[in-house]
Amino acid sequence: MMKQYLLSPGPTVIPEQVLLRMAAPIIHHRTPQFSKIFAETRTMLQKLHQTTSDTLMLSCSGTGAMEAAVMNVCTTGDTMIYVNAGKFGERWGNIAAKHHIHAIEIKVTWGDAVTVDAVKAALDAHPQAKAVFVQASETSTTTENPIQAIAALTKDIDCLTVVDAITALGVIDMPMDDWGLDIVISGSQKAFMLPPGLATMGISEKAWAMIESNPDCQTFYFDLLTERKVQQAGKDTTAWTPAISLIVGLNEVLNMMFSEGLDQLYARHTLLAKGTRAGFNALGMKLVSKVPATSATGVFIPETVDGGAFVKYLRDVMGVTFAGGQDDLKNRIIRVAHLGYYDVFDVCNIMSAVEIALNRFGYPVQMGVGVAAAQTVLAERFPKVEA
Amino acid sequence: MMKQYLLSPGPTVIPEQVLLRMAAPIIHHRTPQFSKIFAETRTMLQKLHQTTSDTLMLSCSGTGAMEAAVMNVCTTGDTMIYVNAGKFGERWGNIAAKHHIHAIEIKVTWGDAVTVDAVKAALDAHPQAKAVFVQASETSTTTENPIQAIAALTKDIDCLTVVDAITALGVIDMPMDDWGLDIVISGSQKAFMLPPGLATMGISEKAWAMIESNPDCQTFYFDLLTERKVQQAGKDTTAWTPAISLIVGLNEVLNMMFSEGLDQLYARHTLLAKGTRAGFNALGMKLVSKVPATSATGVFIPETVDGGAFVKYLRDVMGVTFAGGQDDLKNRIIRVAHLGYYDVFDVCNIMSAVEIALNRFGYPVQMGVGVAAAQTVLAERFPKVEA
Repeated sequence: MMKQYLLSPGPTVIPEQVLLRMAAPIIHHRTPQFSKIFAETRTMLQKLHQTTSDTLMLSCSGTGAMEAAVMNVCTTGDTMIYVNAGKFGERWGNIAAKHHIHAIEIKVTWGDAVTVDAVKAALDAHPQAKAVFVQASETSTTTENPIQAIAALTKDIDCLTVVDAITALGVIDMPMDDWGLDIVISGSQKAFMLPPGLATMGISEKAWAMIESNPDCQTFYFDLLTERKVQQAGKDTTAWTPAISLIVGLNEVLNMMFSEGLDQLYARHTLLAKGTRAGFNALGMKLVSKVPATSATGVFIPETVDGGAFVKYLRDVMGVTFAGGQDDLKNRIIRVAHLGYYDVFDVCNIMSAVEIALNRFGYPVQMGVGVAAAQTVLAERFPKVEA
Repeated sequence: MMKQYLLSPGPTVIPEQVLLRMAAPIIHHRTPQFSKIFAETRTMLQKLHQTTSDTLMLSCSGTGAMEAAVMNVCTTGDTMIYVNAGKFGERWGNIAAKHHIHAIEIKVTWGDAVTVDAVKAALDAHPQAKAVFVQASETSTTTENPIQAIAALTKDIDCLTVVDAITALGVIDMPMDDWGLDIVISGSQKAFMLPPGLATMGISEKAWAMIESNPDCQTFYFDLLTERKVQQAGKDTTAWTPAISLIVGLNEVLNMMFSEGLDQLYARHTLLAKGTRAGFNALGMKLVSKVPATSATGVFIPETVDGGAFVKYLRDVMGVTFAGGQDDLKNRIIRVAHLGYYDVFDVCNIMSAVEIALNRFGYPVQMGVGVAAAQTVLAERFPKVEA
């Protein structure tokens, strides 16, 4: 017997009530029954994005929505700027290359956040750029980029800020209209606590105008104008067959989020991240990121421990699934999640598991030290009782 | 949002694969399809009991099976001996009183186990006693009684040993035939990891002979001879409508248990109990029991903490459900479970939760101390990795 603990930054754990809702008999997507759920879900999604503009649901992974954003904003020969601060930032460049878009890369050392100055310099050097593409949270290095400040740079010029918020929406407060974010992308398997397969997009009026002015949008499936026509109030459906169960599930999780309250939702994630960092600090494990994310935490595995074997041992022997590192960080780090359906005792579990695993690998760790540091932070989640 | 952690000694957590199996469309109980599952389940149940004699499944809670045992072995005016070492031992006396059976009580201080000498003295004083009724694990005080030694006393005399093994079967090794246990009772919501509503009984040849010689069995629903006629191989059904889903679930959990291996099953429970005790010891919390059980651990709440409020706070504010105490122990103890679908990180959770709760109640606890002591024991569950 081995109980399984999924503590990776996506897919994340799915709450039972959501699993049960999605396990109900499937409904047809061209019915009033589906349209009612769709309309409710869209309204809640706008509220989560804090926008009065249109949001969309696309049946694809987050990468599909990233490509949709690039292709609807830009066409062959256009110029775009993108922040490459890790594996996901790099992906903007790969998408642009596929479509022969002139992509200006802002290369950032892994673990650092992009600086506002670097973005400003790129914008000054490339005034023809259609948009700046950036991750709110770069999951490969567990780093947060300053998207509010970046959006402030593009707010009054003819250029968009397009944000991959796949591990940020529903984790941190990012008011779209208020900050002037133009496109905000998310995916179902992160803070939305769903299986993968559904992406969401918030799209500002400014972005819609840019999309409408695109002379040659080179995608059929991801044509956002086609989707907007049918996803609006009164139509309440999707252009192509949607991932019905996931939209039903999204309806459930958005209800959960609003029932918790957005302030409480963000405060919970912030506290879990703080507790996790306190635990790793107490264990003397160095954070990968200089600007650590609220969604997930990456730390270096001690150099005397075989990092590849360590992650596999946790997963296969102990039943605890973390994520490892990619590229240069492969076999050197673990990344643990605290976004979505996670709470205090998940963080305690992360620490207990890391400590036991280090012990089993012969690394001199004092049991309970990381747990204790995390507990001390996390206890704040529960009110003190007066004697 | 509040995640729920069920860590009480019954009902215990139900594994997902069991929930899913029980959620499949219900089958009819007078069909070859049901009889196949019933026969498989019965065979595995005999193997778990380590008996070649008949086992039964009854659609009732454990208390129903306790009453069935009393009423099939004894009739009005008969004499029986019972061990009252807690709330569940006391119940034998209440059942006997209802049926005007002359019940000789062996009263044991709560937290102590019965001594073999006390049982021997009762047997010597009451040679006409039909049986000794005793808990293998007295859950109200989390104490184990010496059932092997008690069975040795009755093995060669005309008296049975009837064991309430509701929190013992599937937790500790208790070979029925080998030890000479005559009736062994269990319930679905403990080590069987199922919802309540199904009881099981292993019944020795000696017990069947005693039951057959009962001149006036005063129950219709719980008439074990009626059940034996139909629950045997070739008939493979129950006398009255059975709790079908629970028998399907029992089939699944017994497959899980044998797939884990009985030795591993018992070793896991033993280690979890040891880790739990080490954790509480490190926190300076005194065990309720002098002979602590493998299934659950009871500890005293520090006297400066409001015990009733403490258990409620854990449940309602922290989402962690333990059991409190009963009668004299009410509001003074917590009882935590480690039987069934529990493993290393459940024990770590117990300790993390108790530490945080004590801290919130203003009790001077050093965070992580209990977790660390538990971890040090529990790490043994995972093999060391050679460098």
